[in-house]
Amino acid sequence: MTRKIGFLGPQGTYSEEAALLHDASADRAYPTITSVGDAVAQGEIDEGIVPIENSLAGAVIFTLDVLIDQPTLFIRGEIDLPIEHYLVAKPGTDLSEIKLIYSHPQALAQCRGYLEKNFPKAEQMASLSTVLCITDSFESKVPAAAISPRRASELYDVEILDRGIQDEESNVTRFAVLGLSDHQPTGRDKTSMAFTFEEDTPGLLYRVLREFGQRDINLFKIESRPTKKYLGEYIFLMDCAGHREESPMKEALAALSEPTSMLRVLGSYPRWNPKT
Amino acid sequence: MTRKIGFLGPQGTYSEEAALLHDASADRAYPTITSVGDAVAQGEIDEGIVPIENSLAGAVIFTLDVLIDQPTLFIRGEIDLPIEHYLVAKPGTDLSEIKLIYSHPQALAQCRGYLEKNFPKAEQMASLSTVLCITDSFESKVPAAAISPRRASELYDVEILDRGIQDEESNVTRFAVLGLSDHQPTGRDKTSMAFTFEEDTPGLLYRVLREFGQRDINLFKIESRPTKKYLGEYIFLMDCAGHREESPMKEALAALSEPTSMLRVLGSYPRWNPKT
Repeated sequence: MTRKIGFLGPQGTYSEEAALLHDASADRAYPTITSVGDAVAQGEIDEGIVPIENSLAGAVIFTLDVLIDQPTLFIRGEIDLPIEHYLVAKPGTDLSEIKLIYSHPQALAQCRGYLEKNFPKAEQMASLSTVLCITDSFESKVPAAAISPRRASELYDVEILDRGIQDEESNVTRFAVLGLSDHQPTGRDKTSMAFTFEEDTPGLLYRVLREFGQRDINLFKIESRPTKKYLGEYIFLMDCAGHREESPMKEALAALSEPTSMLRVLGSYPRWNPKT
Repeated sequence: MTRKIGFLGPQGTYSEEAALLHDASADRAYPTITSVGDAVAQGEIDEGIVPIENSLAGAVIFTLDVLIDQPTLFIRGEIDLPIEHYLVAKPGTDLSEIKLIYSHPQALAQCRGYLEKNFPKAEQMASLSTVLCITDSFESKVPAAAISPRRASELYDVEILDRGIQDEESNVTRFAVLGLSDHQPTGRDKTSMAFTFEEDTPGLLYRVLREFGQRDINLFKIESRPTKKYLGEYIFLMDCAGHREESPMKEALAALSEPTSMLRVLGSYPRWNPKT
């Protein structure tokens, strides 16, 4: 039986690109991060792929909310995808004739330097997404181009005019694979967790860190995020080396129940290895 | 002599709203966060207001980059601004006739539930910003509205149709006041700092936290951010209670030079107090 894999849609986005990298049969697009989580929780799909962290913008709070609100969901894998913007246009479009460039304003902003240098006279036009901008550019009455993910350029009959046109080279998005269980130990794992404290004291966070430090457990990431209520009340997110069923991670997690007021192990899973 | 205050432009954005809340004479708009930092560093303005943290999206990495790249810049104040979206239109527009709603796609997404409920038949239209959407809606041939900050609605002759239309009530952006020096002690201060380690070990972060925990210094925020190079190499950001020139913060900071490979005190400044 083939697995059913869903992702944050629509088709053509970076989430679909990440989902296809994870499993070539991924074909179910959902409109929101919450709806991907619900589909996994209700058994409609076996795995759901959603963004969880971006090297420029940090943690994706909606995905963390879904994981914390739905205790049956776990992270069972991760995918790191470099964000690469493509410049595409209707086949036959003359590069020197381009008058309008359509995309999501955020993508336009990420390519600002490139556009100023290469298309100083073209007008930038806002689209609702980096996929819809392709049809927007097709419908233009004057020669137009669009800034899209590679995957979107495969879904439409477009000509690729240029690739990797973003100014910042190091824009990577990490995607999480959500499932009803996490992953078996592989020997090269990481564990994601979220916790809160009754009181805001550095002493408590220090006690948590000590449990990992004393056991020489490597820390990949720590982040305090304001909770939904307001800036200043925090939930802590941590990624550490090791699997929750294996020593020394198992003992470190057991020791956390006391200093924390809420502890949710979001899952143990193999670290992303782009070579495989 | 009046102080010269700049902000991340254009006029009408939330940054201008924050700048005006800080100092009613703020009137110099700059196109990018980097250009605000440069203007402060070169003495063109006395203070510059830029976003530094959002309750949904986390730290604003461009502002942190500017602070780390320009060691003469300090944070000398903070402003917490609740992000409130307004629905506006050309005066005389009939609410029941609205066919198009223009805004930045991110603002449209933040009001998705409201729009589906109140304007199920209106088409959502992308604009380059939450200010430009006002002129886009004015130029529309069919009845149109726009989603904008309060400040933008004051700059144009618009009718306010509704306010606070975002689905998530707790969207707050924190702005930093940049200057060539930080603030004198006030007795209700916080200190922001950034540091890195030679090696990725939780033992080193544990040693840093211990310096604060042992001195009962309250921790407001901690975040590891991937550096520009790639996901996985981290810089740590921390906000703690107290002023860098006063005990016990002074001693805690002195003790950090050993475990860290880079330590940059970004500034000590009074905590934001919405009552004043």
